[in-house]
Amino acid sequence: VNIFPVILCGGSGKRLWPLSRNSHPKQFLKFFSGYSLFQETILRISQLSPDKFSIIKFLIVTNSNYRFLVLQQLKEISVENYEIILEPVSLNTAPALTFSAYLALTLSDDPLLVVLPCDQFIDNTDIFIDAINQALSFAERDSIVTLGVEPDRPHTGYGYLEVSVDLNTNVQNVISFIEKPNLEKASSLIYKKNYKWNSGIFILSASIWINAIECFTPDLATFTLDSFNKRSILYGFIEPDLESFTKNPNISIDFAVMEKCTPLSNFKIKMIPLKTKWTDLGNFESIWKFSNLDKNSNAIYGDVVVNNTSNSFIHSSNKLVVVSDLKNIIVVETSDAVLIANKDYPESVKDVVNKLEATERVEKDFHKKVFRPWGFYEIIDDGPDFKVKRISIDPQASLSLQSHKYRSEHWVVIKGIAQVNCENRSFYLKEGESTFIPINTKHRLSNKTSTNVELIEIATGEYLGEDDILRFDDEYGRAI
Amino acid sequence: VNIFPVILCGGSGKRLWPLSRNSHPKQFLKFFSGYSLFQETILRISQLSPDKFSIIKFLIVTNSNYRFLVLQQLKEISVENYEIILEPVSLNTAPALTFSAYLALTLSDDPLLVVLPCDQFIDNTDIFIDAINQALSFAERDSIVTLGVEPDRPHTGYGYLEVSVDLNTNVQNVISFIEKPNLEKASSLIYKKNYKWNSGIFILSASIWINAIECFTPDLATFTLDSFNKRSILYGFIEPDLESFTKNPNISIDFAVMEKCTPLSNFKIKMIPLKTKWTDLGNFESIWKFSNLDKNSNAIYGDVVVNNTSNSFIHSSNKLVVVSDLKNIIVVETSDAVLIANKDYPESVKDVVNKLEATERVEKDFHKKVFRPWGFYEIIDDGPDFKVKRISIDPQASLSLQSHKYRSEHWVVIKGIAQVNCENRSFYLKEGESTFIPINTKHRLSNKTSTNVELIEIATGEYLGEDDILRFDDEYGRAI
Repeated sequence: VNIFPVILCGGSGKRLWPLSRNSHPKQFLKFFSGYSLFQETILRISQLSPDKFSIIKFLIVTNSNYRFLVLQQLKEISVENYEIILEPVSLNTAPALTFSAYLALTLSDDPLLVVLPCDQFIDNTDIFIDAINQALSFAERDSIVTLGVEPDRPHTGYGYLEVSVDLNTNVQNVISFIEKPNLEKASSLIYKKNYKWNSGIFILSASIWINAIECFTPDLATFTLDSFNKRSILYGFIEPDLESFTKNPNISIDFAVMEKCTPLSNFKIKMIPLKTKWTDLGNFESIWKFSNLDKNSNAIYGDVVVNNTSNSFIHSSNKLVVVSDLKNIIVVETSDAVLIANKDYPESVKDVVNKLEATERVEKDFHKKVFRPWGFYEIIDDGPDFKVKRISIDPQASLSLQSHKYRSEHWVVIKGIAQVNCENRSFYLKEGESTFIPINTKHRLSNKTSTNVELIEIATGEYLGEDDILRFDDEYGRAI
Repeated sequence: VNIFPVILCGGSGKRLWPLSRNSHPKQFLKFFSGYSLFQETILRISQLSPDKFSIIKFLIVTNSNYRFLVLQQLKEISVENYEIILEPVSLNTAPALTFSAYLALTLSDDPLLVVLPCDQFIDNTDIFIDAINQALSFAERDSIVTLGVEPDRPHTGYGYLEVSVDLNTNVQNVISFIEKPNLEKASSLIYKKNYKWNSGIFILSASIWINAIECFTPDLATFTLDSFNKRSILYGFIEPDLESFTKNPNISIDFAVMEKCTPLSNFKIKMIPLKTKWTDLGNFESIWKFSNLDKNSNAIYGDVVVNNTSNSFIHSSNKLVVVSDLKNIIVVETSDAVLIANKDYPESVKDVVNKLEATERVEKDFHKKVFRPWGFYEIIDDGPDFKVKRISIDPQASLSLQSHKYRSEHWVVIKGIAQVNCENRSFYLKEGESTFIPINTKHRLSNKTSTNVELIEIATGEYLGEDDILRFDDEYGRAI
């Protein structure tokens, strides 16, 4: 049976600021291992044995800001069977899944979809794969299947599933979906055996989803199909037609379909229990909970010294961070911002980011490190008339052929061998060598080697904005 | 009458780490205004009207690590009448004052000394000057005079003075000195009218001090006089003879003399009240107390956003710092370290620094910004094979004529006009221009203009330590 995992990774993760940014959100961060949550999601489902269910392609739904990050992270884990769908606007999960289902149906005969959010921690992969295998067997027989998690505490951040209680079988019928409860309700549900956390992981056939969405939210089916038929493909990325896609309502999978599939409807939902540690990594408190803790229950990442401090999440990216005589706090240090917050109010990080948005702070959106298709750059110093960057170019990658009207640039290579084109000259610079690019000169920087090239760029001039760039040619389609 | 203010500024200020470092301690930081505490101390006493008491010279006691900082800060406030004494080893205040007294006696006939610690906040300068004027009048008549402060709360960090209570006069006799009390004792003293805080400010004649030290601590008088007679003067700095100075006990002014001057001894001490807001700026809590507070009683310095936060001291030097849902905390961000501490335990910052000392952390001692006689540099990026610095050269200043065995350097000027000497060539570089200094090349960087010059230096090579330097000539005596 042909399987298409649908990987939903378009979110922005405000509650993990400043680690997570609009330009580099939580699903692409590497928290617990050398892999990001996005990569772990793909690696986890890849454990599915191909005997019975074989993964044809990963359908990755994201937005255009993250396309190069997605490409790079797929390359890192050597995954090549994928399609990347760039939502022109973020409209929650239902339009994303519907578009993916139409795509899967053109790629295979009645395929099964495994819908996977990318911000989850799942402890035991074997148990996960067992549950997915069971779920796929029911999905083959036209059920919609979801994974349910046994609550271990009241949680107001999760939706709940009300299920039947048949002690003779593992699988249960879902009776109703319950939206995020208040604390009082969550506290009462914890004592009831027939309420589970809704993991947001769904297993179902593409055609069943299309049938369900046509039945319950016919407009969404119409607009998304239209946006699918008018899709464009640019440099390998699939882009739904903007005009028709934008007509879709902003609506979740649960709300569009699942909550309407009562036992009396035509669509039955089954629940398979996921019997391993599971959490939605929505905020720092949840990451703290799943970290390795020191003897005072601190989760420590990076260069940190603690003194008489307990129950805290402390993350350093760059500098020495010293925490003394405190408890239950969150400290996150990044190259351009430091957050110090109360771990008992993890949701308020989102409020702060909204506050920053209101003042249009750049730190909200960008890390100083900026990812590009050819590698990355990091602003290491700047002032009114100058900007210093460290630039790293991936093997075999090239920046665009470009020129600047207002700035000149000095390049000093600090690692590897760079190829420089400047007007009609082409030459190589190795470690310790430098060149000068005057204003209005066509130039291009390339790495023709198999290892990274690093250089320091000092730009000087009266205007230093990134928008002072004229692109003549670009390998990544940015010269248009 | 000739006055010599003795400015004691050799301390290291661990309790204000990471703002205060061994290499740049609290007395040289600019907290409340454009002036450092050191500068404010000098500017404050300079308000003394020269009608009756005229300041001949400032006697500045510090150590060799801070000599260029002292010079620069004196230049900033245009003070030229000074002698700088570099203690070869820090031995508390009594040897420092004794050496200063011997020096004053060679410069003037029976001069008066005003002993001023450099880590104090004094609110009203007029009131301070009034008190000093009164004190000087008594010192002329051979009294030792100290300024006393009315306690407004129990304080275990200050010494106390027990004084007579004569309601007919402002000046009182000191009956005894009380060392820092415990909380219980401090709480009881607050209700007694005859106990004042010991400000550590003393006014007395140089000869009276020498008489008293000869009487109470004769060894100290002998060793210090010997170190004074064998002093050397190097590039204008006065250095006590190391061998004899080191024989001195590590002892404070209070302990060596003041506590022994009972009403029955030959030396009488008078107290003049200092009736203005006064504090020893020993820790962040005390700086918070004297800062301008926002409506939630937060002291905010630099780029800080607060959310539901109160009673906190938050200082950002570089990055955006966001604090949410916390109270009574200290946050101090600098270019290489971040401290987050509990404001209710301000003393524990010292413990943390001692902890760092035990692990030999560089951050304990150095800011990334390093002050030099010609200006400063700041390391903005580094790696195994490269180091990038931003260098700022003061007007009319020069680095030494030097060469490096293992590193080459690229310089790109980003502000002003630099003069470069490289082997036998001499040329100027202006903003946006650059040059290359190969390994083993004699070179020198100068600023012949009247405004600062800034440049970016990219050093590459197999070894990048600051000790790879051969100095051929230096304006500041470092080429020996």
